[in-house]
This record gives sequence, structure tokens and C-alpha cells, in this order.
Amino acid sequence: MKGLGDHLIVEFYGCNKEVINNEVLIENILIKAAKVAKATIIDYKFHKFSPHGVSGAIIIAESHFTIHTWPEYGYCAVDIFTCGDLINSSIALNIIKEGIEADYMSAIKMVRGLIDLPDDQIRHKPEGS
Amino acid sequence: MKGLGDHLIVEFYGCNKEVINNEVLIENILIKAAKVAKATIIDYKFHKFSPHGVSGAIIIAESHFTIHTWPEYGYCAVDIFTCGDLINSSIALNIIKEGIEADYMSAIKMVRGLIDLPDDQIRHKPEGS
Repeated sequence: MKGLGDHLIVEFYGCNKEVINNEVLIENILIKAAKVAKATIIDYKFHKFSPHGVSGAIIIAESHFTIHTWPEYGYCAVDIFTCGDLINSSIALNIIKEGIEADYMSAIKMVRGLIDLPDDQIRHKPEGS
Repeated sequence: MKGLGDHLIVEFYGCNKEVINNEVLIENILIKAAKVAKATIIDYKFHKFSPHGVSGAIIIAESHFTIHTWPEYGYCAVDIFTCGDLINSSIALNIIKEGIEADYMSAIKMVRGLIDLPDDQIRHKPEGS
């Protein structure tokens, strides 16, 4: 059995508090991660909270990247949800980890949409829109 | 120990294939779910794929809602990531389940951002922007 999507659920601790409170930097890091991982970006939105924290979502043809930052705790929650076999999530994670200067990272990979069909019958979303 | 966010990871099977292939309906259902759950919507984006499937993300002051649909399998992946104690995720889930006419639903709740501080020192993102 195979799933329709792979979902990486990532916790980053010990991040650079100034970086993860900066909307422009966070947006740049996530967009770079998505592009280098070969994701096809459809649209994205980032938001700076007052007094601190940034949230962002990138919709990709292969599902999504999201980030939420808590600068006061040096913590970021990142999710990378992909379908198909073309996205290199590991390289995306490394780009994010370096960009936010995280000391620690933990990641859980979940299979989403477990379908009881042979592999060759599982179709993925197209890369384009 | 308490976490900074609650993350509901939800699988819907046996959905109405026409509904989950309709971008407008999916957007309306998710927006309604977020509003009824008392989430503060910051921005959102939904996208219809060709030949089928819809993806969407709502950034809320309290984190995010996302959805990805596979009409060909009657399957939807939904994530509801919230912080603070004000959001009623259960009511949001029920609105989505009814809207997409899902036969089956499974949900896992993860605590994100486990922080070793007493409860009263954990601050949540403000409700506004």
C-alpha cells in the first residue's frame, strides 16, 4: 500500500530569534527551500504578527509548505506536505535549518491518504497548475 | 509541560467527488469552518488543479487550516494547526466532514512546540494581526 502524500512534521528549536521574527527573511528562506527542492510554487502568503512571530504558507503543485515561528522561544513549526516522487524534502529541510540557524531539529514523516491500490495506479497531481 | 500549538491531522475518505473537485465549494466550506471555530482569518488561497483536485491554505492568527483533495480517490487531507485555547477545532472538523460528505474520518492530534515552562508563562499569538 502506498500513500498519496508524504507529510514531514518538523520542530526547530534554538533558532536565531531575530531571523525568525523577520517576515522577509522567513519568506525568502521558505521560497528558496521550495524552489531548490524542485517544488512548483503556485502561490504564497507570509504574515508578521505583533509583537512577534511570523506565519507563512506556500501552496505548491505538490501540496504545501507552512511555517509558524515563536521568536520568544526560539521555536519554529514547519510542515512540508508533498505528493509525487520529485520533491527533495531533505534538501528543503537543510536550507530551512541553516537559514533559521536552528540548534535542534526533529522530524516525523507521515504517509497521508493510504490507498489500497498498486503503485502504478496511484496518480499524483500534475506538476503544473 | 505544554505545547505552543495543537495540530490536528485529519484524513477524510469516501467524500463526495464532485464537491471536493469544486474550488468554490471547498473554499466556502473551509472558510465557514474557520469562522465558526472562532479563528481569525488573516488571508487564504485556494487553487484548482487540472484535471482534478483542489488545494487551499488559510492563514489564521492562531496558525493555519490546509486542505488537499484527491477527487479520483474520494480522499481529502486536512490540517488544522491552532494555538491558544479559543479555537473550537471539533466544530470545524464537523463542518468540513458534513460539507465534503465524508463517509470516514480519522484524526491525530499532535502537540507542537513542547516547551518546558509552566502554563502561565506560555504566551499565545494575539488574536489580531
